[in-house]
Amino acid sequence: MRVLSGIQPSGPLHLGNYFGAIRQYLELQRENEVFYFVANYHALTSVRNAQTLRAYTDDVVVTLLSLGIDPDLVTLFVQSDVPETTELAWLLTTVTPMGWLEKCVSYKDKVQQGLPAEHGLFAYPVLQAADILLYDADLVPVGQDQKQHLEITRDIAERFNNTYGDTFKLPEPYILPHVAVVPGIDGRKMSKSYGNTIDLFDDPKQITKKCKRLVTDSRPPEEPGDPAKLDEFPLFQFFRLFAEPDEWEDVKARYLAGGLGYGTVKARLAELIIDRFAEARQRRAELLAQPDRVAAVKAAGAERARASARIVLDRARAACGVG
Amino acid sequence: MRVLSGIQPSGPLHLGNYFGAIRQYLELQRENEVFYFVANYHALTSVRNAQTLRAYTDDVVVTLLSLGIDPDLVTLFVQSDVPETTELAWLLTTVTPMGWLEKCVSYKDKVQQGLPAEHGLFAYPVLQAADILLYDADLVPVGQDQKQHLEITRDIAERFNNTYGDTFKLPEPYILPHVAVVPGIDGRKMSKSYGNTIDLFDDPKQITKKCKRLVTDSRPPEEPGDPAKLDEFPLFQFFRLFAEPDEWEDVKARYLAGGLGYGTVKARLAELIIDRFAEARQRRAELLAQPDRVAAVKAAGAERARASARIVLDRARAACGVG
Repeated sequence: MRVLSGIQPSGPLHLGNYFGAIRQYLELQRENEVFYFVANYHALTSVRNAQTLRAYTDDVVVTLLSLGIDPDLVTLFVQSDVPETTELAWLLTTVTPMGWLEKCVSYKDKVQQGLPAEHGLFAYPVLQAADILLYDADLVPVGQDQKQHLEITRDIAERFNNTYGDTFKLPEPYILPHVAVVPGIDGRKMSKSYGNTIDLFDDPKQITKKCKRLVTDSRPPEEPGDPAKLDEFPLFQFFRLFAEPDEWEDVKARYLAGGLGYGTVKARLAELIIDRFAEARQRRAELLAQPDRVAAVKAAGAERARASARIVLDRARAACGVG
Repeated sequence: MRVLSGIQPSGPLHLGNYFGAIRQYLELQRENEVFYFVANYHALTSVRNAQTLRAYTDDVVVTLLSLGIDPDLVTLFVQSDVPETTELAWLLTTVTPMGWLEKCVSYKDKVQQGLPAEHGLFAYPVLQAADILLYDADLVPVGQDQKQHLEITRDIAERFNNTYGDTFKLPEPYILPHVAVVPGIDGRKMSKSYGNTIDLFDDPKQITKKCKRLVTDSRPPEEPGDPAKLDEFPLFQFFRLFAEPDEWEDVKARYLAGGLGYGTVKARLAELIIDRFAEARQRRAELLAQPDRVAAVKAAGAERARASARIVLDRARAACGVG
């Protein structure tokens, strides 16, 4: 199966990104023909500084490689290295009813969050449709809350096919298994916009500091713990994600019995997080010292992606009579 | 000065197009560095058949060449041969407030005329801004009623420049001199959508037939004419455009004195129109017999246009940090 997914370069990737998508991407690359791209055309709607956007873009590439995305298995590329995307987006735009974009919740949400009401945000689903359709993707990994995005891609593809004859493959959503919604250190969903993230490559000291700030309560260590908190506190949610089952059972038992302070659990969690990404951190340091290697990966990915994109774009151009 | 203008391939060009723009384009090419393009990406919003769009696109190229656009003086190209346009359009889209597009009258007008409310129509001004800014145009010929289009291009360019630093040249409108608004055979403005056109390369027989259908009144030939009708009737408006001043004065005098029937004037007008475009019609026949020559003109134009576009696009990409 051909699988396609994009990641926006809007800052350092955090544990929410990891447990919500990247961990699954690592699985998918083994059994599928996978295209992963860094969606920097999309990021222009929020990042308004060239140097920052370039740094964020490279950071996503380096992060994915560090975590084990294998550029021999995966076509890993930067969106703007395939400008064919924007041409297809225009072709699709001409068959996209305004009503479909007006009903998209993501535009309304972002404007409500304070992003300026700009056409880039509004037109975003059309560029996303181009991203997906350009590679004849079979499957697009999505979270439960992102199904609407793929629906509109399928609708646009069908409308083009109905207007001009069969041109695009209709992709199917692939609901990722084992997705964990990770809380931020304040207990809300982990999100850059809340400033509550633990980033994958935060400095170990910073990870330790952030773990200390995880929201708990004022129970003294000796007092038996409240079982309800095991599901409620981000501290325990994280611990369960990072510890081996035995260690988790042990912590649970000691917490409920009394005598285990939050500080001890927090310190151990920090160790576990740091350990989990130690190897990736090492690979990342190596990659950062070899910008040529990263550039070569991007170039090879772009070449493969463009070759594939060209086939579909030519089909679409011929179908509607441009070129 | 660098002058840029586009023509939509939405069907055969008519006398309204000629007196409203093309006649002036022929003047402009002598003293300026001129870019004329066939706006086929735009036409996708109304032409929904590949074969038709391809035919209309080539027809505009052949028509312009037939009328005397000189491909050695002018960079004459087809919009979709410069896909850089769509990439720039996306970059511009991300800095274009929705409000600017919402207030555009042309979208509302077209929807009222019965075109479906599609995103392509709504996003049209952004693609148009890309068309213009991509070539560092100094001047854009516009009719009095098209000033708003250029205003939005200037606004988008300024917003990008303010966000990312000086990137685009701000084009100035060039209000075409000697523009004649040409009536259709029914007296309304000549427009394809009213079905009241006389096309430049209508068959001579058809021109004669259409001239006969020009709206007049039921005055018998011998009766003296009403001076008010000299400005009112399309027949006289056309006659004035096509005849030498002497002949026009003569017709006027004989009409006012009585004794000159509309039929005679109509027959003479048809002759004048056919004569005016006789040479162009001949060149057109030659060009239609040489598709390779037309293809070569398009290819050379595309190459020159792309080289120029690349410079501006690279500047814009660097400014916002993609690529």
